[in-house]
Amino acid sequence: MAQLRIALAQVNSAVGDLDGNADKIVDWVRRAADADAHLVAFPEMMLTGYPVEDLALRASFVEASRRALVRLARRLADEGLGDLPVVTGYLDRRPVELVRPGQPAGAPLDGAAWLHGGEVLVRSAKHHLPNYGVFDEYRIFVRGDRLPVVRVHGVDVATVVCEDLWQDGGPVSVTGVSGAGLLLAVNASPYERDKDDVRLDLCARRAREAGCALAYVNLVGGQDELVFDGDSVVVGADGTPLARAPRFVEHLLITDLALPAAGAEPPRGPVDALDGTTITIDRHVVSPDPLPAYPVAPQTVAEPLDDLAEVYAALVLGTRDYVRKNGFRSVVLGLSGGIDSALVATIASDAIGPENVHAILLPSRHSSEGSVVDAEDLVKRQGVNSRIVPIAGMVEAFEEQLELTGLAAENLQARIRANVWMGLSNEHGHLVLTGGNKSELATGYSTLYGDSAGGFAPIKDVFKLTVWELARWRNAQTGSDLPFLHPFAEEPIPEAIIEKEPSAELRPGQRDSDSLPPYDELDPLLTDYVERDMGRESLITAGHAPALVDRVIRLVDIAEYKRRQYPPGPKITPKNFGRDRRLPITNLWREQS
Amino acid sequence: MAQLRIALAQVNSAVGDLDGNADKIVDWVRRAADADAHLVAFPEMMLTGYPVEDLALRASFVEASRRALVRLARRLADEGLGDLPVVTGYLDRRPVELVRPGQPAGAPLDGAAWLHGGEVLVRSAKHHLPNYGVFDEYRIFVRGDRLPVVRVHGVDVATVVCEDLWQDGGPVSVTGVSGAGLLLAVNASPYERDKDDVRLDLCARRAREAGCALAYVNLVGGQDELVFDGDSVVVGADGTPLARAPRFVEHLLITDLALPAAGAEPPRGPVDALDGTTITIDRHVVSPDPLPAYPVAPQTVAEPLDDLAEVYAALVLGTRDYVRKNGFRSVVLGLSGGIDSALVATIASDAIGPENVHAILLPSRHSSEGSVVDAEDLVKRQGVNSRIVPIAGMVEAFEEQLELTGLAAENLQARIRANVWMGLSNEHGHLVLTGGNKSELATGYSTLYGDSAGGFAPIKDVFKLTVWELARWRNAQTGSDLPFLHPFAEEPIPEAIIEKEPSAELRPGQRDSDSLPPYDELDPLLTDYVERDMGRESLITAGHAPALVDRVIRLVDIAEYKRRQYPPGPKITPKNFGRDRRLPITNLWREQS
Repeated sequence: MAQLRIALAQVNSAVGDLDGNADKIVDWVRRAADADAHLVAFPEMMLTGYPVEDLALRASFVEASRRALVRLARRLADEGLGDLPVVTGYLDRRPVELVRPGQPAGAPLDGAAWLHGGEVLVRSAKHHLPNYGVFDEYRIFVRGDRLPVVRVHGVDVATVVCEDLWQDGGPVSVTGVSGAGLLLAVNASPYERDKDDVRLDLCARRAREAGCALAYVNLVGGQDELVFDGDSVVVGADGTPLARAPRFVEHLLITDLALPAAGAEPPRGPVDALDGTTITIDRHVVSPDPLPAYPVAPQTVAEPLDDLAEVYAALVLGTRDYVRKNGFRSVVLGLSGGIDSALVATIASDAIGPENVHAILLPSRHSSEGSVVDAEDLVKRQGVNSRIVPIAGMVEAFEEQLELTGLAAENLQARIRANVWMGLSNEHGHLVLTGGNKSELATGYSTLYGDSAGGFAPIKDVFKLTVWELARWRNAQTGSDLPFLHPFAEEPIPEAIIEKEPSAELRPGQRDSDSLPPYDELDPLLTDYVERDMGRESLITAGHAPALVDRVIRLVDIAEYKRRQYPPGPKITPKNFGRDRRLPITNLWREQS
Repeated sequence: MAQLRIALAQVNSAVGDLDGNADKIVDWVRRAADADAHLVAFPEMMLTGYPVEDLALRASFVEASRRALVRLARRLADEGLGDLPVVTGYLDRRPVELVRPGQPAGAPLDGAAWLHGGEVLVRSAKHHLPNYGVFDEYRIFVRGDRLPVVRVHGVDVATVVCEDLWQDGGPVSVTGVSGAGLLLAVNASPYERDKDDVRLDLCARRAREAGCALAYVNLVGGQDELVFDGDSVVVGADGTPLARAPRFVEHLLITDLALPAAGAEPPRGPVDALDGTTITIDRHVVSPDPLPAYPVAPQTVAEPLDDLAEVYAALVLGTRDYVRKNGFRSVVLGLSGGIDSALVATIASDAIGPENVHAILLPSRHSSEGSVVDAEDLVKRQGVNSRIVPIAGMVEAFEEQLELTGLAAENLQARIRANVWMGLSNEHGHLVLTGGNKSELATGYSTLYGDSAGGFAPIKDVFKLTVWELARWRNAQTGSDLPFLHPFAEEPIPEAIIEKEPSAELRPGQRDSDSLPPYDELDPLLTDYVERDMGRESLITAGHAPALVDRVIRLVDIAEYKRRQYPPGPKITPKNFGRDRRLPITNLWREQS
């Protein structure tokens, strides 16, 4: 056996920020060197950020990534870090572009490179391209067909990229015949609830398939609608977890491994990848011989987070990175005295500090006195900035010109409120946060260009029952030292806000239950219909009451298509008469020099 | 040689309207039978509409399409139309679903079927899946691997689907060795400027490759952001155009062809498709022997439309179908007295009739007197409904509570106007049309939740210079009998509106040229940057002035990312922490029974 100390750099990159990401790599390589690591690995597409969406199709962006990689290798050597092998993700392209109909322009690759001695030692690229759920990678990448196997201190280390682990055959299968002693996977795997268990099981299974230990380094941070939770992990050849990084924070996971030393004459060249393709093994040697025995460092095995802590951490990280990576430092939001805006204010305080949160109280003639009192109580508890802007006069000015009734009159109030916070956003440069939860959005219980107007909706992925759970959970953490929470002196959310019956307060005596089924029936049904994509018959078979199924399907379908019929306002299309460009929202790369 | 009279049914399907689309098929089969056709063909995904986006991943929708196909075959026979072979697109799935990681759930197929004698004679599916530009088909379909060759009156007819023509190898290549006498392609190919020439060249080339005549039937109609222009065509084996349908209208293109009679022992079974796959030829016989000679019918070869006529027709059709397929009958729009809203009002009048258009004049303290007069002149010329709603009182009510300056104050006015038309939309059920053109949208010269708020933006794909060209072109058509124009008695757009210098009129003396480069420099640069995706260096090499390039790139990038940072309001995600579902906007299918 040979010893190897690996460092997995679970860090937060930003899409488009090639210089900033390179700086971060140098910084964390130095930390790894200081920890006497023998190999340091960064996440998928580290140098460009992930996901780059259609930026991959712009030649100037691909070339910028390729140049940045070469510069980075040289800079690491210049700064005395050239001896430590570095594996990092970046954006590349096929050397000779074959223009084939239907292939992504420029043949971009989701690349991984080994850097050593001031040079790019070897380049490879993701073989299995995910094209489902949140991924559209057939659109922007072509498939890689090489497996690098690099000898470091006498251990052969193979590298693969993210989806290569999730699909059968391909690089993992070839790793199994390559004789590698360690499989290193660089990832940008987004957070979903309970995904940590799925990932660990997958790593264990692939380690057994490849017949060697597996080191998994994942991105951490928010990007647009996605949150990456880290959860980097190392498992032995039998699948046993050996080390695991804490989630939702940057972390350098150092692990000492005892691995089989490389054999005398391992296979090289093209190998059947058992997925209908062949993959070429690309062998390099950084340091041929095992090290003399050395004492191992203590291993980190992070405590798992409970379910609500994990969700809350994801909301805080997603909000913080959306605000900061988009160049904002402060947020503005309407604070109604209800549970949704109260939770959003609390998440915002945790994410960027209460001093950067501006809460606007916008009472109308239908607002209850309790609402204003409760909102003011929250302001006092959290120390956020606040301002009261009564809207009655504005509503009257519209009523002088227009005769609006029913829903149209209710919507008007919501839109006037949106005008106020958008005006304050334009005047003072705050990002607008909106308060809609997933139950409300799914059923269309909100006003277009009204309460739904804004830049980021922190709880849009959270059903209403979970909103209450999270509020209680957050109050219970008062005094906790969890790293993603602001140290409030008292419970940040007034109990009265959690206890009150939910109401939009857009007409006298209005209650959510006038328009929606009870949330304890609605939310499980929405989960099955929206998240599991079950049809009507399947929903009824699963035990939901047929009348409720029909009512909720109707609400969701109408809301879904209304929301689509009224997009944000028109988008510009890259072609005449086409669809919107697929570009990341948060992106620090500029075409402009 | 054998004679065959084919009928290409260039019709307008609606996504999700399985019953309505089936009714349309029966109707047009009857018309083809009345014209003594021997074979009738409908567009790609005719039965479900196109594109169905992620609806393909819902099992209940796929099953609904499969059942509808079988019912349709039976119904055609019941109505005395069973003897006429029908080829139509529909949504299917692989018979045995192999659950493979990364494969679309349920293994959906972009199917084409032959119906005859009350039965589904043969099923096949699109082999080449487009996954670029407006297409995401790797996400929702698996590849077909069969080529049906059906003998009709002694002629072997092969059928392929849309993208199968656009990529090398695959079904067209196999058609070449199949001995087929006719290649029939069913399509849903969206409109782009000048695409008619590209399509005709493609059909000619593929006919020569396949060594037989080629019949191309395309969808017509608007669906979400796409417009399908029809342009169905038949070319001979040497690529010569023989018949061509008029564009942007439904049409039954009847063509008499003299085709080689089928040989004695043609190949069958798996064939190398020259694209790394094999395709199985699936042979069937409807009627083995050639017909006795009969006199041919006259052929239609539609006159081509000039460039502006083609664009204008696309705008009218896109607007009409967006309104109607989304269940609206009327529209509301702000009429400022400027060129953009004037053109939008005219397109709306052409699309759904001036009696269904509601123009709202919303003068502020910064509106010039000329603006109101010009808008009223347009109202009179076109006979649209109109109403004046002055906004000064509403602006003052906001000013009493808020201190907004500069852009924030300008945006407030635009948002108050949006509140008015959204209120009228909610109260009266009109769809809101917005007036933004592509130059303005690309550079961010509009207000979020203000002038950009609405359901459909008819001229969002049109640069400002083209807006003026289209206005002049439309005025010049007064008295024309083009089918997509309303018969106005006089020029619909007042000359004063076309002549005036463009201004948003949000502050005293404001002009577009205060904020934007001259449109004759801006528009060509936007075309290269936005539509051709050229980088900074390439733009300068192409002859654009470097200072202008930097200024415009900055405007576009800021606008693009601002627009993304402020989405329509939050979307619901199918997963927790995911992206929006990919579903069509216009969709008549409901999960609910």
